[in-house]
Amino acid sequence: MDLYIDRTELIRGLARVQGVVERRTTNLALAHVMLSAQGDTLSMTATDTMLTLVAGYKARVQSEGELSVDAQSFFQIARALPEPTVHLQSIAGNRLQVRCGNAQFQVVGMGAESFPPQPASTEKSSLSIDGSTLRRIIEETSFSVCTDDNRYGINGAHMEEVKTADGSRLRVVTTDGSRLSYSETPFLGEFGMGRRMLLPRKALSEIRKLIDNDKGTWHVVFGDRSATLKTDDLTLMIRLVDGEFPDYRRVLPDNSQRRVTVSREHFTNALKRVAIVASDRNHSVRFAFESDRMVLSARNVDLGEAREEVPIELSGAPMVTGFNVKYFQDILSATKSDQMILRLGDALDPCIIEMPDRDDSLFVVMPMRLD
Amino acid sequence: MDLYIDRTELIRGLARVQGVVERRTTNLALAHVMLSAQGDTLSMTATDTMLTLVAGYKARVQSEGELSVDAQSFFQIARALPEPTVHLQSIAGNRLQVRCGNAQFQVVGMGAESFPPQPASTEKSSLSIDGSTLRRIIEETSFSVCTDDNRYGINGAHMEEVKTADGSRLRVVTTDGSRLSYSETPFLGEFGMGRRMLLPRKALSEIRKLIDNDKGTWHVVFGDRSATLKTDDLTLMIRLVDGEFPDYRRVLPDNSQRRVTVSREHFTNALKRVAIVASDRNHSVRFAFESDRMVLSARNVDLGEAREEVPIELSGAPMVTGFNVKYFQDILSATKSDQMILRLGDALDPCIIEMPDRDDSLFVVMPMRLD
Repeated sequence: MDLYIDRTELIRGLARVQGVVERRTTNLALAHVMLSAQGDTLSMTATDTMLTLVAGYKARVQSEGELSVDAQSFFQIARALPEPTVHLQSIAGNRLQVRCGNAQFQVVGMGAESFPPQPASTEKSSLSIDGSTLRRIIEETSFSVCTDDNRYGINGAHMEEVKTADGSRLRVVTTDGSRLSYSETPFLGEFGMGRRMLLPRKALSEIRKLIDNDKGTWHVVFGDRSATLKTDDLTLMIRLVDGEFPDYRRVLPDNSQRRVTVSREHFTNALKRVAIVASDRNHSVRFAFESDRMVLSARNVDLGEAREEVPIELSGAPMVTGFNVKYFQDILSATKSDQMILRLGDALDPCIIEMPDRDDSLFVVMPMRLD
Repeated sequence: MDLYIDRTELIRGLARVQGVVERRTTNLALAHVMLSAQGDTLSMTATDTMLTLVAGYKARVQSEGELSVDAQSFFQIARALPEPTVHLQSIAGNRLQVRCGNAQFQVVGMGAESFPPQPASTEKSSLSIDGSTLRRIIEETSFSVCTDDNRYGINGAHMEEVKTADGSRLRVVTTDGSRLSYSETPFLGEFGMGRRMLLPRKALSEIRKLIDNDKGTWHVVFGDRSATLKTDDLTLMIRLVDGEFPDYRRVLPDNSQRRVTVSREHFTNALKRVAIVASDRNHSVRFAFESDRMVLSARNVDLGEAREEVPIELSGAPMVTGFNVKYFQDILSATKSDQMILRLGDALDPCIIEMPDRDDSLFVVMPMRLD
C-alpha cells in the first residue's frame, strides 16, 4: 500500500469509524481500523462484529494494498499532522509509515488477514429517506429503547410499514416496558425488514452521529438478517437482533376522558426544577391537574421539597397522579412543537403525549403509584 | 433570615464557592454553603478547613440571619430559577424557603452553629498585585508543584521576596523533584509570609479560577500561619502548609555550554506529535541537538515510532539527551513568548528554559537516561 491523501479526508474517515471501534476488547482487531487502498479510494473500515462501518475517500493510490492499525492512536496522529497532504505506506513488519512535512511515524499494524471479514451483503429490497427525517425519527425513539440486552423482543428498535390514507409510512417503535415511543415518515422504495428482527440500540446512536455529518439522502438496504445504510461516502452494515417485538397496539390506551394542553417552554422549565428534588431512583413527581393549572411537586428526605405551577387548559375532571419526571424530560428534549397534548385516563392509566401540529409521532408513559 | 437578591448575584456567589466545597466528605458542613444576611449583603461562605471563601453580594435584607444548605444542590436550584429576583427565607426546622415566580423550594438546611467557625484573621503585613499578573505567576508555577502531599517541604508553593537592581520582587517557586519553576513580579506593599510556610496546591488552583472572574486588584494579607486574598466581593482565607522549601538556588545549574533557540510554535507542534508515541510512564523522548535542527524521537512497543525535526539555532557542540516530553509541554502551555531558549550542560545536566524577552520567570527540567 502506498498512497497520498488529504489530511482532512483522512481525519474525516477516522472520525466516522471511532464510534464503531471497540476500545475495551481482548480481540485486537476490533480496536483497529482497516485501511484499504484500491482504485482512487482509501477505505477505512471498523467493526464491532454487530456494526461494520466503511468510510471511503478519494486518495492518490500509488500501490494498492491493505493494513490495519489501532484506530484511536492513528486518529490522534492524523489530527496532529502538520501539512495538508499525508503519505501512507505499508513497510516491513506490517508497519504503516506516515509522512507529513517534517513529521514521521511508523505505526505498528496487522495484516489484513487478522481483520474480521466483511459480512456478506444480500439485498432483498431498499428504500430512501432524507437525512434530517431519519434523524428526527431516531431522536424521537432512541431514548425509550430498552437498555437491558436480556429483555428479549424489546432490546432494539422495531421497524414496520404502516398503511395510512396518504400511502405507506415507515414507523420505528421502541419501548422499555415503562414507556413507548413511535415516530414515522413517508418513504420512497420498498420496506423489507423481517418481522422478528430488531435494530440494535448501538446502531441507532451510530446512525444518529453519522447523520450530523452526512445530511443528504440515506439509502436503506434490507438483507436477510441485516440492514445496510449508505450515503456517497459511508456504508454502515448492521446485523439485526433476533426478537419478536410485542403487539404494542394492544397496549396503546384509547384515552379520551382528559385532555391537557400545555406550553412546551413552561412545562420544560418547571420539570427542570422539580427534577432537582425528584432525584430518588424513580424520579417520582406528583402531578395535580386542576382546571387551569398543573401543580408539580416532589420531595426528597435529604434535599427538601419543590413545588411548581404550570398554566394548562384541561378538558375533563381534575385528577392527581404520579410520573417519572425523566420520561417527560426525554420526550420534551426529543421534540420541538410549541404546545404539547397530554391525554389521560384515570390515575393509574398510562398517559399519551402528542403534538397538536403532528400526526407522525406518539409517546406513552406509564404512571406511578404515589406513596 | 429573610431577603431578596438578584438571581444573577446569587448564582455568581454560589458559583464562586463551588470550588472550595468538599463533595465527598463525612462532615456534612463541608458540603454546605453558609448563607449569612447582614446589613445590605448576603455572604455565601464555604470551607474545606484549609481554604475558606466568602463571597458577598448586595441583597435587600428584611431580616438578618444565618443558615447553611447543601452547596451543590442549592447552586443547581438557583441556576434553574425562572425570574430575576429570588426571595430567600429561613423557615421552621432549619429549612430555606426559596420563592421565585411560580417556583417554590423548601431546602433542608442546618443552623449556623453546625458550620465551622471562620479562622481568626491576624494581619502582619499586606501587598497588592494586579489580577492578570497574579494569574501569570500561578500559571507559570502551579503545574510543577508536587502532587504528593507527603513530600514535606515541596507539597506547596514557596513565596519569597527577591531584591533586584530595580527593587523588590515577589517570587513564587514550585518543584516536584524532577522540575522546578519560578515566576516573579514587582509589587506594592510589604511581603510577610513566614519562611517555613507554603501555599497549598488547592489554593493555587482556586485563586486561578477566581481571577478569571475578578480581574481587578487583589490584596494579599499575611497572617501568622495564614494568607488572605481579597477583592471587593471575595475573601479567600488560606491556612498555610508547614514545611521548609529546599534551597533551590543551589540546584539551579549555571549552564553556559549550549544554548538553543527554538520557535514556540514549531516546538509545541512537534512535541504534540511525539507525545502520542511517548505514552509510557515516563513520556521519554530522545532529543538530538544538531547544528541547525533538533531531532525528537520516541518509541513504544504497542504503537510504533515517531520522529520529528525542529529547526533551531544552536551555540555549542551537538549533543543527545532525553527528557519527559510532558514537562516541556507544560512549560509551553503556561507561557506565551514566540521564542524559547534552552540552556544545556552535558547530557545528564538539567535543562534551563527561559524566554528571551523576559527575566521574570525560569524553568528547570531534569534529563532522563535513555535506554
